[in-house]
Amino acid sequence: MKAEIIAVGSELLLGQIVNTNAKYISKCLAEIGVNVFHQTVVGDNAGRLKESIVIAEKRADLIIFTGGLGPTKDDLTKETIAAHIGKKLVTDLEAMESIEQYFQRTKRVMTENNKKQALVIEDAKVLPNENGMAPGMFLKNGQHFYMLLPGPPHEMEPMFINYGRNAILEILDEHQKIESRVLRFFGIGESQLETEIIDILDRQTNPTIAPLASEGEVTLRITAKHQSSSEAWRLIQQTEEEILRRVGDYFYGYDDTSLMQELITLLNKNNQTIACAESLTAGLFQANIGNFSGVSSILKGGVVCYTNDAKMKLVNVKKETLSQFGAVSKECAAELAENIMSILDSTIGISFTGVAGPDSLEGNPAGTVWIGIAQKNKTTKTYLLELASSRNSNRLRTVKYGCHYLINELTS
Amino acid sequence: MKAEIIAVGSELLLGQIVNTNAKYISKCLAEIGVNVFHQTVVGDNAGRLKESIVIAEKRADLIIFTGGLGPTKDDLTKETIAAHIGKKLVTDLEAMESIEQYFQRTKRVMTENNKKQALVIEDAKVLPNENGMAPGMFLKNGQHFYMLLPGPPHEMEPMFINYGRNAILEILDEHQKIESRVLRFFGIGESQLETEIIDILDRQTNPTIAPLASEGEVTLRITAKHQSSSEAWRLIQQTEEEILRRVGDYFYGYDDTSLMQELITLLNKNNQTIACAESLTAGLFQANIGNFSGVSSILKGGVVCYTNDAKMKLVNVKKETLSQFGAVSKECAAELAENIMSILDSTIGISFTGVAGPDSLEGNPAGTVWIGIAQKNKTTKTYLLELASSRNSNRLRTVKYGCHYLINELTS
Repeated sequence: MKAEIIAVGSELLLGQIVNTNAKYISKCLAEIGVNVFHQTVVGDNAGRLKESIVIAEKRADLIIFTGGLGPTKDDLTKETIAAHIGKKLVTDLEAMESIEQYFQRTKRVMTENNKKQALVIEDAKVLPNENGMAPGMFLKNGQHFYMLLPGPPHEMEPMFINYGRNAILEILDEHQKIESRVLRFFGIGESQLETEIIDILDRQTNPTIAPLASEGEVTLRITAKHQSSSEAWRLIQQTEEEILRRVGDYFYGYDDTSLMQELITLLNKNNQTIACAESLTAGLFQANIGNFSGVSSILKGGVVCYTNDAKMKLVNVKKETLSQFGAVSKECAAELAENIMSILDSTIGISFTGVAGPDSLEGNPAGTVWIGIAQKNKTTKTYLLELASSRNSNRLRTVKYGCHYLINELTS
Repeated sequence: MKAEIIAVGSELLLGQIVNTNAKYISKCLAEIGVNVFHQTVVGDNAGRLKESIVIAEKRADLIIFTGGLGPTKDDLTKETIAAHIGKKLVTDLEAMESIEQYFQRTKRVMTENNKKQALVIEDAKVLPNENGMAPGMFLKNGQHFYMLLPGPPHEMEPMFINYGRNAILEILDEHQKIESRVLRFFGIGESQLETEIIDILDRQTNPTIAPLASEGEVTLRITAKHQSSSEAWRLIQQTEEEILRRVGDYFYGYDDTSLMQELITLLNKNNQTIACAESLTAGLFQANIGNFSGVSSILKGGVVCYTNDAKMKLVNVKKETLSQFGAVSKECAAELAENIMSILDSTIGISFTGVAGPDSLEGNPAGTVWIGIAQKNKTTKTYLLELASSRNSNRLRTVKYGCHYLINELTS
């Protein structure tokens, strides 16, 4: 089965928003073995949308639309598709009820234009919208399947994963199984990684191996096809072992995990608690921990000590340390980590002090960062980073290196 | 001039990355009056790429490609375009030199596959790559213009804004000027906003008005065309004034600004300093301040007091406050804000305490949040939020409401 994703919305063509929907749906489809060969974006214009549908029908079996289901005048996806395939729009009573309930729940006034959202294409299976008003649709016409999803990602994603994906699974030919796994690496560049495994990449047919780099990380997606799922997994396993024999030192996890996710799992497993003192990252490390629910048992908390004054007042860094070595120093990093651990009585203290950029500080170029890691009854470690990216990329990478070094400490 | 953006890369179709390049280029093109009617994504496959070029040539004058210029085997954009339009690839000596210098500068070893990156299409204007190795290209063939840009955003964006954009400006017909401005609103929903200004939207022709909602914010983009730039701006100004007479209470800024940017500008202007105590946001408010350079004069720092223990130890919240009213209370929010202001001797203290979700806490449903704002010599204010979104959306919106209320305090 070949799929095409058509995002409808002039705001995409004006560059006001990014098409994250195409990524989300493509990823889900890849996981169930549906090939996405094209993603298209077209504006809120019936004529151009119709042309895009005609092109997509020539090259895809399944066409998934996002956007243009809302209440406003420029929302015309379902109207255009219905006209193109010769179907009517009818009011869906359940959708209408759900829209009315949504307004009651959020205590907002329902304006007249919202009723338009309860219209669906006749004969379509309605996909419930649990986070908004516009229902989704799925229907077959001739040789083609059409799925209509809302534009806002917080409505589209749950609708697709809970209802849309299953509707597609029901129509899939189940003869060929496609399995895939992503290996995640940190601390090695993309071309370096490729050079280390070039011979494995060169003979790739089944499984295939796709490298990808982003923000200091590299991933390899291994994808295998076979009539038997277990044989596909055996092929993946074999290739994975061969790759990890070469570059296993940089490997940290599978699929959708992240360095922070791995770190949190490890802290939970070891009954460790963490306290943090952040200067250049200004709370970013802790905010990233806070992205995960249930972390109150491990995150004791910490401080944002952006200024020297805050380093002294909140974390009792000695004035002499700052005058003798400066805020960007291994001595300061060590004191920050040890003191915050002691103040909050955690088992681990971690600190970040450095120069995010763009300007240099205390004679240190932008990108100079010290990370301190203190542990109860262990010698405090410090790590120097020399990053060479933009301000915010330097801050993000500092957080990732913090996870990386702490994972190494906890697993060595 | 009509443009189409074709992103080349199987990693996009597999959903491994988001097509931020299309957004970036579309936004830049909108600003110089080039209409983008289509964005397309196609995989690393010469046959399908060629088909996409043929389709694009029928509906666009300018085709901009991103990706597929790298050193690896699956990079084939320039090869495919050259073959399609009957041109040869030649080694560009400057590009080769720049690639060699790049390896010297970053102290990495140059692998053989990198030499491929110095090949360019004959007769193309070469666009220098200041952040990577693959040079860009711009050329005319028949009635069409082709621009080739690298895939990694940190290479593509500077190349486009510094070289690609100017190359396009040189070929543009300058008779019609297109100007546009974005108005940003917070605290009002999209359909509510549309209802308030429906008659203005209904008669829109020139200027046009495009509404867009995301994460608790709504924007309106006003775009006017005229032979005279000043007349286009006068039309925008007129429409803007009419809109702000209706919904000006929710307006907070123009174009690419953000609530945090506006808040920082205001704090700087008033010589204010801020200290923060964050529970559910776990550092996110301060990390967002830290996104901006030069904030050390206003951000005194603060604490992440995710646990009750940290609230007492780091911010001296009274045990009785927590036992009598709970951590999610106006009393706790007020104490946190006042105490952190006093500890760090700032002119403003702000606090966030609440339930991010998904679970409820102390009998408060997920989304219940108290924000406290303390100011020197003023009565402390507290604000209750009842959010109804996901954990991380609740945390993001809490940060935005913090900016919003603080801006109101400072401007009232």
